[in-house]
Amino acid sequence: MQERTRVRLDVSYDGTDFSGWAVQPDRRTVAGVLVQAFDLVLGSDAATGLTVAGRTDAGVHATGQVCHVDLLTEVWRRHEGTLLRRLARLLPGDVRVRAVTWAPGDFDARFSATFRRYEYRVTDAPWGAEPLRRHDTLAWSSRLDQDALNAAADGLVGEHDFAAYCRRKENATTLREVTRLDWRRSADGVLVATVQADAFCQAMVRSLVGAMLVVGDGRRPAGWPAGLLARRERANEVNVAPAHGLTLVAVGYPDDPAGYADRATRTRRLRVPPDA
Amino acid sequence: MQERTRVRLDVSYDGTDFSGWAVQPDRRTVAGVLVQAFDLVLGSDAATGLTVAGRTDAGVHATGQVCHVDLLTEVWRRHEGTLLRRLARLLPGDVRVRAVTWAPGDFDARFSATFRRYEYRVTDAPWGAEPLRRHDTLAWSSRLDQDALNAAADGLVGEHDFAAYCRRKENATTLREVTRLDWRRSADGVLVATVQADAFCQAMVRSLVGAMLVVGDGRRPAGWPAGLLARRERANEVNVAPAHGLTLVAVGYPDDPAGYADRATRTRRLRVPPDA
Repeated sequence: MQERTRVRLDVSYDGTDFSGWAVQPDRRTVAGVLVQAFDLVLGSDAATGLTVAGRTDAGVHATGQVCHVDLLTEVWRRHEGTLLRRLARLLPGDVRVRAVTWAPGDFDARFSATFRRYEYRVTDAPWGAEPLRRHDTLAWSSRLDQDALNAAADGLVGEHDFAAYCRRKENATTLREVTRLDWRRSADGVLVATVQADAFCQAMVRSLVGAMLVVGDGRRPAGWPAGLLARRERANEVNVAPAHGLTLVAVGYPDDPAGYADRATRTRRLRVPPDA
Repeated sequence: MQERTRVRLDVSYDGTDFSGWAVQPDRRTVAGVLVQAFDLVLGSDAATGLTVAGRTDAGVHATGQVCHVDLLTEVWRRHEGTLLRRLARLLPGDVRVRAVTWAPGDFDARFSATFRRYEYRVTDAPWGAEPLRRHDTLAWSSRLDQDALNAAADGLVGEHDFAAYCRRKENATTLREVTRLDWRRSADGVLVATVQADAFCQAMVRSLVGAMLVVGDGRRPAGWPAGLLARRERANEVNVAPAHGLTLVAVGYPDDPAGYADRATRTRRLRVPPDA
């Protein structure tokens, strides 16, 4: 077997025209488009094992996605700038590889990750979303109370069983640790939720946002979203907020590369499938 | 003749899918789409004389466009919120009416304006434009020097004959006063030019940006753009920067409504056609 060298890729995409991250036959997916570009630049099968930190759903965007790939060749080492430019020319405008970094063999984009951070943008302006930001901003038809949103958020921070907020009961723990959840109003009046956790189950961020929004517009009391945590299964009265408001903005890794392997071992042992 | 009442409209649009502002037969234009919506909400011909502050070219965006219209009916007065919501439901997502304000009869969106302010976004990242902002950000393939861009900008501020930067010799003065022109790097690394003047001739902002960009990447000396002002006709070596990087962000009016008419009279006397 030939020696392979691991490469970390920092990736951005506009999820609008993608059927999510994962390769699917006859669908345009982010991973599908990336693999095609690697094959053209590096040669067929020179890049294998594309692994991603957050397997985003259809329509979800990313400005801080991270993945890794194993290369058969070191020819691009110390020529990362040229590789970036070549990929930029080849890739469609809705996917960009922002950085290519050679990484230790025990770096794992998925299992070494210590946190995923998402942002959800929603406007409650009566006129709707700013046209240039309509692709990543949800327009909400009633006024939203920032204090109520933050009161709802407070009850969700911490380590909980998030089964109520997972798409379906998974064959693994639904225990997650939400380390940050807050709402701010940006300069242009848009409400931005920041949600950070060690990992998320499928549609979890959008389910949390959906539950908080009906608190924000006064239809539910502030304690309602946290109250649902007592359920041990999906809460069907929670609406999953639309995908287009959601963006994966950052993925965290141990500061010291020596921690990559440890973290991966720990994550695997907990059987947490760390996909968003 | 029936009494009409003047209304100021604050408008945003994503210029990508529009053939500019002005109504044209068989073309999708911002004014065309707005007039269609007014006819549906207010009744046919209830809104007349749509007049705009900056007649933006095809592909140019706006977050702070201002126009006025004369209404046959006062039925929506004090119901501006309902009118906004109704327009929001009717208009496509790439145009929004952000505010409707009843204005004195001598308010003129075009002639009362004291300044127009544009922003031009350009990235020099080797990987190109952030996917979610690719519709309003130009990707420049070489590194840009912010100090060189600002040195070029400095020479263009002030009252000059901008004939070199106007699309063609107009049947009017090409004298304009640029009151602000500077480049900053935003938090995400994008270079943003802010250009403000009493008025602009056609393609002037994009011509100024085009001239400064070749200073920014080192192909021309910092004094070159200002040197071209000595020309009394279009400088053909200046490339007009692509439309999609440009956004009209603000239009200024006299603080005191008593100044609307004065300003309009003065603008008309100077025979400055205040279109961007």
